[in-house]
Amino acid sequence: MAIVAGVGMAAFGRHPDKTVADLGVEAALGALSDAGLQWKAVEGMYCGAAGAGLTPGTRVSALLGLTGIPVVNIDNASASGSSAFRSACRDVDTGAADIVLAIGVGKSGRTLRLDGGVGAPEPGTAEYRERQIGMMQGVLPPAGVFAMRTRRRMHEFGSRIEQFAAVAVKNRKHASLNPYAQMRGPLTIEDVLNARMVADPLTIPHCCPVGDGGAAAIVVSERKARELGISAAVRAIASQFRTPTLAGVMDAQDADTTTVTVDAAYAEAGLGPKDIDLVQVHDAFTVEEIEYCESMGFCERGQGEFAVERGEFSIGGRIPFSTDGGLLSRGHPLGPTGLAQVHETVLQLRGQAGERQVEGARTGLLHMVGIGGVCLVHILQRA
Amino acid sequence: MAIVAGVGMAAFGRHPDKTVADLGVEAALGALSDAGLQWKAVEGMYCGAAGAGLTPGTRVSALLGLTGIPVVNIDNASASGSSAFRSACRDVDTGAADIVLAIGVGKSGRTLRLDGGVGAPEPGTAEYRERQIGMMQGVLPPAGVFAMRTRRRMHEFGSRIEQFAAVAVKNRKHASLNPYAQMRGPLTIEDVLNARMVADPLTIPHCCPVGDGGAAAIVVSERKARELGISAAVRAIASQFRTPTLAGVMDAQDADTTTVTVDAAYAEAGLGPKDIDLVQVHDAFTVEEIEYCESMGFCERGQGEFAVERGEFSIGGRIPFSTDGGLLSRGHPLGPTGLAQVHETVLQLRGQAGERQVEGARTGLLHMVGIGGVCLVHILQRA
Repeated sequence: MAIVAGVGMAAFGRHPDKTVADLGVEAALGALSDAGLQWKAVEGMYCGAAGAGLTPGTRVSALLGLTGIPVVNIDNASASGSSAFRSACRDVDTGAADIVLAIGVGKSGRTLRLDGGVGAPEPGTAEYRERQIGMMQGVLPPAGVFAMRTRRRMHEFGSRIEQFAAVAVKNRKHASLNPYAQMRGPLTIEDVLNARMVADPLTIPHCCPVGDGGAAAIVVSERKARELGISAAVRAIASQFRTPTLAGVMDAQDADTTTVTVDAAYAEAGLGPKDIDLVQVHDAFTVEEIEYCESMGFCERGQGEFAVERGEFSIGGRIPFSTDGGLLSRGHPLGPTGLAQVHETVLQLRGQAGERQVEGARTGLLHMVGIGGVCLVHILQRA
Repeated sequence: MAIVAGVGMAAFGRHPDKTVADLGVEAALGALSDAGLQWKAVEGMYCGAAGAGLTPGTRVSALLGLTGIPVVNIDNASASGSSAFRSACRDVDTGAADIVLAIGVGKSGRTLRLDGGVGAPEPGTAEYRERQIGMMQGVLPPAGVFAMRTRRRMHEFGSRIEQFAAVAVKNRKHASLNPYAQMRGPLTIEDVLNARMVADPLTIPHCCPVGDGGAAAIVVSERKARELGISAAVRAIASQFRTPTLAGVMDAQDADTTTVTVDAAYAEAGLGPKDIDLVQVHDAFTVEEIEYCESMGFCERGQGEFAVERGEFSIGGRIPFSTDGGLLSRGHPLGPTGLAQVHETVLQLRGQAGERQVEGARTGLLHMVGIGGVCLVHILQRA
């Protein structure tokens, strides 16, 4: 089983003075230092980045020192960092390697464009039709999709926009306690309601910011952890990766893929929702945290927004979600986000999360989705 | 050990009427048909693509049918397809999966730009300095780098530009026998010498074309191959991936990484140069085939251009290189190139390469390098 021996971050925010590679080096050195390992001990590296320029992981590895190890650059859109973490866990799980580094990097000026990066798809092509018929999440400006999902819930469950705003307010409060978060200033329900409209009924604070940042985790085998005397060990007890199924896309696509992926992770870990102490969720839009909490089994369908309003997902509540501020306030530079979730969860499970500590946290669930409907779920547990 | 059960290609060339995803679907269906497998049997997929838009592999998997499998998109520049193939082999080798699809896709209008895709690096940053000091292959327009390497050899070994042109002529002759190749028209030494100059002494035919294309391979476990009754099986008996070492960059960077990687592959397979029947090499520029043949142990240093001139690397010669035309004439759409090498080698080892068949071929070596100096070497062998 894969042990997360160390985590590091380059704080999310605006860093015009730092390159993508600088952000990766900062996060990697943090993780190495946290694990008490030297770069030359690392046997392989995965880098998650979405449209962040030429092979950013290879640039990071060159700056850390030319040790000759394999470096795989993964671009799985928003789920890039989670994919890098999964590949690292898999290499260790299968015995292919003993010490693997997973990093994620992103810069707002270098992130992906929804038109595919180089021009729009050619009219008349399959790619163009895909977007027209709305099969993929990237079809409409994402805020439009999530505005419709929000409206649908308000219609179906009698919920109010204030309840969705409560997700943004809660996550900002969590972020205010997190030095690595991008958005830390105070935020009230009124602030959310009165902010500039993006896609009715979603104003700016309903949508995550895309900034600059880096995050990293060192994954080691159990044998190596014993050999190195690594204490306070956190284990990856489940790692699941799914794309949509035909049955799934007939309903709300991401939410359904989340159900399938989370259920597989619960089965792999031999756990259920009652065993989870905290959740990091893909809350790129406020309605997402609400949808996914239901897909994960923490709420009955149609109850999510009411549970948020009652404080059930706040630190100190029944099951804290997005304890570091989530995509909404910790920020979402695409590449590193999944690894920022690993960073936060490891700190929480070690009892090192300071003012935002979830008391007695032993097991955390991490969830990311990405364009094309990919979904990754990890469960980490304190030994 | 990983078995290559099927290969497929979308011919390299210009396909303005096809999307990146179309090219991937065509190659994938070819590989599935060749293996006698259905898409729903595939347990996981890796897609190699360099700057080919948003998660192209996920788009291909959606078009093949929404089966829910994990899809990892890898962008390792020119080595993307080889990296995807290695990840597929590793999943099968370690027992993580039994049937994995590796594909590569690329379109000339959507390929990477050497400035990083979104603007040039900021002056004063580490990234900018990296390029200034020339640490990475992407620093100068690549033709400039290889023009200097060519001149250096002419100075050091008394070789003539006609000998480098002989690489282009030989590989074009091989490509003329390959229906999947981009450049198939006749080419003479005089044509090469008289073509438009790119970077003195390199004219256009010394440099590979970047076009559109797709390539795919199905990798299965030995157990699954037996179960499916797959005959004429080709095994991946070595799979090595290296990045530069500090010692290596003090000399010619790529060539040295090639030596280290090829030596590791020989050791893994328990073979040496004498056991190899044909080679697919990263011949993006004519001088590369010459440098790498020496790094691989097929020639003494300084002898490569003389060996090419004598026909030793032609089909029918001592050790045929680039039997499908290589990057120089089969073409190099970046993402799929490494998998086109797998396609060609599998056909050769099965005795299905038609007019370009290397008689009695049993063992093939495949070599790709990519920006940042990454190097991948695979050795495939007929069972």
